[in-house]
Amino acid sequence: MQVNGVPYRSIWLDANQAKVHVIDQTRLPFCFETRVLTTAEQAADAIYNMIVRGAPLIGATAACGLYLACAQDASDQALKHRATTLLASRPTAVNLRWAVQRMIPVLLAAPTAQREAKARELAQRICDEDVDLNSAIGDHGLELIRSLSEDRSGATVHVLTHCNAGWLATVDWGTALSPIFKAYDAGIDVHVWVDETRPRNQGASLTAWELGAHGIAHTIIADNAGGHLMQHGDVDICIVGSDRTTRTGDVCNKIGTYLKALAAHDNRVPFYAALPSSTVDWTLRDGLRDIPIEQRPSDEVTCISGIDHAGAIQKIRITPTGSAAANPAFDVTPRHLVSGIITERGVCEASESGLLRLFPEQNT
Amino acid sequence: MQVNGVPYRSIWLDANQAKVHVIDQTRLPFCFETRVLTTAEQAADAIYNMIVRGAPLIGATAACGLYLACAQDASDQALKHRATTLLASRPTAVNLRWAVQRMIPVLLAAPTAQREAKARELAQRICDEDVDLNSAIGDHGLELIRSLSEDRSGATVHVLTHCNAGWLATVDWGTALSPIFKAYDAGIDVHVWVDETRPRNQGASLTAWELGAHGIAHTIIADNAGGHLMQHGDVDICIVGSDRTTRTGDVCNKIGTYLKALAAHDNRVPFYAALPSSTVDWTLRDGLRDIPIEQRPSDEVTCISGIDHAGAIQKIRITPTGSAAANPAFDVTPRHLVSGIITERGVCEASESGLLRLFPEQNT
Repeated sequence: MQVNGVPYRSIWLDANQAKVHVIDQTRLPFCFETRVLTTAEQAADAIYNMIVRGAPLIGATAACGLYLACAQDASDQALKHRATTLLASRPTAVNLRWAVQRMIPVLLAAPTAQREAKARELAQRICDEDVDLNSAIGDHGLELIRSLSEDRSGATVHVLTHCNAGWLATVDWGTALSPIFKAYDAGIDVHVWVDETRPRNQGASLTAWELGAHGIAHTIIADNAGGHLMQHGDVDICIVGSDRTTRTGDVCNKIGTYLKALAAHDNRVPFYAALPSSTVDWTLRDGLRDIPIEQRPSDEVTCISGIDHAGAIQKIRITPTGSAAANPAFDVTPRHLVSGIITERGVCEASESGLLRLFPEQNT
Repeated sequence: MQVNGVPYRSIWLDANQAKVHVIDQTRLPFCFETRVLTTAEQAADAIYNMIVRGAPLIGATAACGLYLACAQDASDQALKHRATTLLASRPTAVNLRWAVQRMIPVLLAAPTAQREAKARELAQRICDEDVDLNSAIGDHGLELIRSLSEDRSGATVHVLTHCNAGWLATVDWGTALSPIFKAYDAGIDVHVWVDETRPRNQGASLTAWELGAHGIAHTIIADNAGGHLMQHGDVDICIVGSDRTTRTGDVCNKIGTYLKALAAHDNRVPFYAALPSSTVDWTLRDGLRDIPIEQRPSDEVTCISGIDHAGAIQKIRITPTGSAAANPAFDVTPRHLVSGIITERGVCEASESGLLRLFPEQNT
């Protein structure tokens, strides 16, 4: 998407060298800065420290990290070691494993001397495919928003989203935000309630920044506010992303998603998860039991960054010294609270039969 | 309760002059400072700017404000004018109206020259009564925690609370925290999950500070985390306060309470509201329809205060410039999600019949 009129992806391969460029998402919305990654270790650090984040972008970064690994040392042993490092960088997003499992067998089967070129080609393909998948997700989700707009005779459609599942969470377009970008571009009157998404505030920083840059009306709210808005009829649809979804339709996403799904269910607001099929973990049936939930550092809760009156980025502590904090990063929304899943092949029920109808090749 | 070994109330009348002392709660947990109020206007400002907050303390502050008003000008006209100013300072807490309605008729019936002394006596009585009510709430709530502790054979009882309904929200003891203080003092092994309670972070600042000062084990969490903890059996009971409760048992409390009540209901975790009967609005039957919800300034969402690395209190902006924010301050939890109401007269069902059983004098 565009940043100050210049088209960007969130990650791209350097045209000439074994380098990967990413947008430093820890600096947004205050500074737009890019970083250069030259090793797989740097790619893993960028994932762990959330310079890049969002399940699809984590997958793309892992793919690019394997390309860098091949440029560092294309031997079997070195490649496997660096793949392990990349896999360990974040435990919840299944796209990370998906990207590594897609590339490693192909690379190991290739002659060592050809691995770097092969890895570059595969990483580029994974990035390009992600863009196409997310565009397709947007086209399918657009129809849900269009239908709500028609039901409301063209009056504003109010969408609530949690965290950032926009183009910054993917290579381009986004998952949950892709239908919103497409709806806006199609002339539909849309307004987005943006959950700030504590503790890392990806909503208030990244989602608000993306929507603002595209000119889409939006209002930031505390994570506590969405239930109240739904009680009062101020939300027409919730659309969120996912970091891992089971074959049965349980949706793991940023912590707090489950609370919004409960409120949507209680107030009969449709609640959709938008995700590429690479986010589906076809090996899992019970999301609550089987999806590992990352516990992140407590200082993400006790401290927060922002801009001071002089325009400098400051990190401040917002809790008493001596108080502990816990920081589970994701939760699981059981499928019965999910109205449907928006994928690159269409919208389906959040169930095994629904997903298998769209992805029959997984019926194994 | 004690602050560094010194017993404090959150508000007290000056022993010699027409002055009222309060703790400046906007400076906690970083600085413990008291402020002196000398006019009703200053009392109203202290309520509006949340130097004092919490429904019972707002009521007590309004009572003390009327005492200051009498000292300023005890005429009917001046008194009524200042009562209106106090009533307008915050719209949701019914205790504010309760305190004013209790004092004004008595004051207007008294000779002008006696009003200051009468108001001082009444304000002192309202403060003292609040302490007794909250102590009684604690005694009744303690039995719920004791019972859970016995069910768990003495293992830690994990209580989740939202916002601050501790002694700082009242004159002393607190409402939701009163049972926790009493349980701890009774030797029960208790641990508190403290919702940070965005946007003003009363949980992460005031509740954590209170619990830490009393030596009670606690962990601060983002407001998003409570549902996940309940899904995994990590919460044994939720106890919250209330700013206004209908005669039918609908509980209005700090924004986000409703989301926790939904999660508690979904995971069969008991969910209690602890409140003195002055918080019950006996004129209302439908909380969602009838309780006015205060919309507070958007900069409470877009900016946040904390301590920088040098130990100074800094206010920083955490959202992009140009993004709007909305800030509804309360929500309403429908009675069917509330397991029970803990009052000064005991615990009852969240229903009209439940409340009337304890308060038969309201059966009019």
